[in-house]
Order: sequence, then structure tokens, then C-alpha cells
Amino acid sequence: MHKLVLIRHGQSQWNLDNRFSGWADVDLTAQGMAEAQEAGRLLQADGFTFDVAHTSVLKRAVRTLWGVQDAMGLMWLPVVTDWRLNERHYGALTGLNKAETAAKYGEDQVKIWRRSYDIPPPPLERSANESVHDPRYATLDPKEIPDTECLKDTVARVMPYWDEVLAPAIRAGQRVLVAAHGNSLRALVKYLDGISDEAIVELNIPNGVPLVYEFDEHLKPLRHYYLGDAEAIAAKMAAVANQGKAK
Amino acid sequence: MHKLVLIRHGQSQWNLDNRFSGWADVDLTAQGMAEAQEAGRLLQADGFTFDVAHTSVLKRAVRTLWGVQDAMGLMWLPVVTDWRLNERHYGALTGLNKAETAAKYGEDQVKIWRRSYDIPPPPLERSANESVHDPRYATLDPKEIPDTECLKDTVARVMPYWDEVLAPAIRAGQRVLVAAHGNSLRALVKYLDGISDEAIVELNIPNGVPLVYEFDEHLKPLRHYYLGDAEAIAAKMAAVANQGKAK
Repeated sequence: MHKLVLIRHGQSQWNLDNRFSGWADVDLTAQGMAEAQEAGRLLQADGFTFDVAHTSVLKRAVRTLWGVQDAMGLMWLPVVTDWRLNERHYGALTGLNKAETAAKYGEDQVKIWRRSYDIPPPPLERSANESVHDPRYATLDPKEIPDTECLKDTVARVMPYWDEVLAPAIRAGQRVLVAAHGNSLRALVKYLDGISDEAIVELNIPNGVPLVYEFDEHLKPLRHYYLGDAEAIAAKMAAVANQGKAK
Repeated sequence: MHKLVLIRHGQSQWNLDNRFSGWADVDLTAQGMAEAQEAGRLLQADGFTFDVAHTSVLKRAVRTLWGVQDAMGLMWLPVVTDWRLNERHYGALTGLNKAETAAKYGEDQVKIWRRSYDIPPPPLERSANESVHDPRYATLDPKEIPDTECLKDTVARVMPYWDEVLAPAIRAGQRVLVAAHGNSLRALVKYLDGISDEAIVELNIPNGVPLVYEFDEHLKPLRHYYLGDAEAIAAKMAAVANQGKAK
């Protein structure tokens, strides 16, 4: 049986401030770092280990991975960083407070921007898009660098990474850990579990909790589950869902 | 002009305790972590940046690299971990205190074990060699896993890594950072600067200080220098040289 472990980064400063992060390179809070260490301890206590890890090029995901590696004694692990695992690009909403945005535009509009499958937030002006000049994206065709993304756009870059990188590794027997973001992981989970464009709106992934997928030999998911205290995880998921409320 | 930056890990717990480390996976002290951060600040202040980093599979080197990446805002950097950058294997001396070993066997014998080019310390019994069962070495042919090494043995595994991995990357224009160990770096420096088997005995590399090599287009070294305060670096190098004294 094949397994895959996904983990959304621990609490970031902008999770705490309830601001849209997207591609802004916000760091973890002390709580976020503790969540990463705890995730590593849970994985190790349950007998997990890994052959390779994949993460985004954003520091909140990398530092979460570092915390898991540290707690598991796996600092030597090969790590691949790839922009295709980045958070969804939040366009002109990047940096704005979610509750203030909801008070201004209405909760329904914010839920559309946060969770609708194919409606992106308003785009950044290209001239205001700092990613265009960021060395970590220097190898990309400028057309690949988004000014905004809906989840469908995120799916369109995450799926090739699954098909070309993650799935072949898992099929070859590698034990793979992916440390990424709420929406790059929602994109992957949508595909793995065949979730509809409508139903994905209601799916929330908690910060810093290992999510285990088990597959048959054709990489068809057999089941998935979170590691850790079920009640605490449910509270975290509800907190993510409620971030877009006006207060 | 091509450049390469080498950095020996910051102070480890066994540097502090004056014990032979070798392949034992000893962590950094708080001072060692601070040295790594400071190295990153020095590199950034001098306008350095990197496209890729290489390190060993030992946590004192990986954590040093993490500190440099963190301080430079380069957490997204591709990182390659490889056992060929490991510290020299110290055989049966692993874990022993250097001064106590000098008191027991004499300073001359300890200097031979520490610094002679082709005389290895007494080997570990294979049955006592934990690396044989360590997952990070699982892909190696068991014959590749040493029970002890002299510097010549370390050169024999570091040089292929230079020839096959580091030199082609530098030649292709990549800005490369290597975070490694006293003896894997001495092996590399011996080759780069054409240091004789006799003269290499006296070369000491300080912990946590960036060592910059500049090359012509054929990767012939033009010059090298340490970044940072020259007096502090000289004191660190003398401290390394003096570790094998009886008191």
C-alpha cells in the first residue's frame, strides 16, 4: 500500500492577523513553529518516515518542513522546493485583512474570492507584482507568474506537479511528504478524492496537522485521515472557515 | 569570474566538549546557530547570493545551512544533501575527548590521527558501526560505508563530488554554497590549492566562517579569503589547531 502525507504550514503571522497571504512570503509565528514540531512528533510516534519531501518556495511552508524534519531526525532528507506548490495567488487582496474586506465588500463576496472554484480575486497590476523580479521565480516564463488565481488556476499548476513528480515517486515506492498551503493542498485533495467544483468550496484544511492518504497500487485513494486530536483539528478547520466573516 | 563559498558548520556540542565527532550526528550549540546566522548576514552584506546549496547528511551542517538560508532570505533555495560531504569518519575515536586521548596516547599520536594524510584512526568494529543500519546510508553499497578514514580516504569520496556535481554547476554559472565539515572541506581545499600531503596537516578551517574562492574560467583558483573579522578568524583557527593538546 502506498501512502502520502500532506501538511499545511503552521500558523503564519498573517494567519494570526487574518490577512490574505497568497504569494507574500510571510513567516511562521512561534505557535506555527511549535505546530510543525508537534506534527513531526505525531508522525514519528505513528511510525512514519520519509524518503523525500516537497515544499513550496515560500518560507512558511519551508520552515514548517524544517520543523517536521527536525522533530523526526530527518534533517538529511532530500528536499525539493517548487513554486507550483505555492499558495494560491491572492491578487490585489494580498495583504488585506479578511474581516475588513468582508465588512467592505460583504461576506458573500469574500467567500466567493476565498473559495469559489473559478472566480479569481481582482488581479495585481503587473507593475506592482513583485514576483516578476524575485530571483526564486527567475527561471519561469513571465507568463507563468500569476497576477491573481482562482482555485482552478491553482489546480492547473498543481496537477502537472502531481502527475510528473509526486505520483511517479509514490508509485516507485518512495515515502513522500508534502509541506504546502491551504489552497495548493485543496487543489490536490480535490483531484485525489474527486471532489466537485461546488463541494470543494466547503473544504478547509487546518494548519500544521499531518493529513495521511493511503492508496491502492493504481494510486486510487483508499482512505485519508488527520493525525492528532480530533476535537482540536475540528476546531482548527472551523477557524479556517470563519476567517472570511466580517467579525 | 566564478565563485564558490564554503562554510564549515558552526560550533557543535562536541566541538564544545572537545570530542571527536566524525559521522556521529551531533547538533549545533546556541553559539553554532548564531555563527550560522552571522555568516548569512556577512554574505548578504557583501552582496553574495546563491542558486543552489550542497551539504552533508549530518545535522550540524544542515542546520548551519538553514541558518545561512534564513539570514539571507534564501529558504527557497534548492538544497542537495550528500554523504560524500560528511566529516571524515573518526573510527574508534568517535566520541572520545581529544585532550584525554592526547593524555593517554600522546599529543604526537593524536596529531597523526587528526591530521596525517594517510594514517587512519583505529577502525570501528563493523558490528559497532551504526551507519550500516542508518536509513540515510541505505542507498550506499555497504562497502562504501567506512569504519574509519584518513584524510586521503575523505579526498577519495569528496573529489568525485567536486568533479561530477560541484564543478559542472559552477562552470555552468551557478552560484554554489557548500556547508560541510572541517575535513571534507580540507579535502576540497587541498585539491583546489594544490596543497601537498605534508602541508595539509597544518591547515585548519574555522567553524562558521564563509570561505570564498574565486576562479578563472577553467576553475583555476585566483584567490580565496574568509569573510569577517580577521583577528577573530585567526583566533578560531588557532583554537582548532590546539584541540589535540593534552591540556
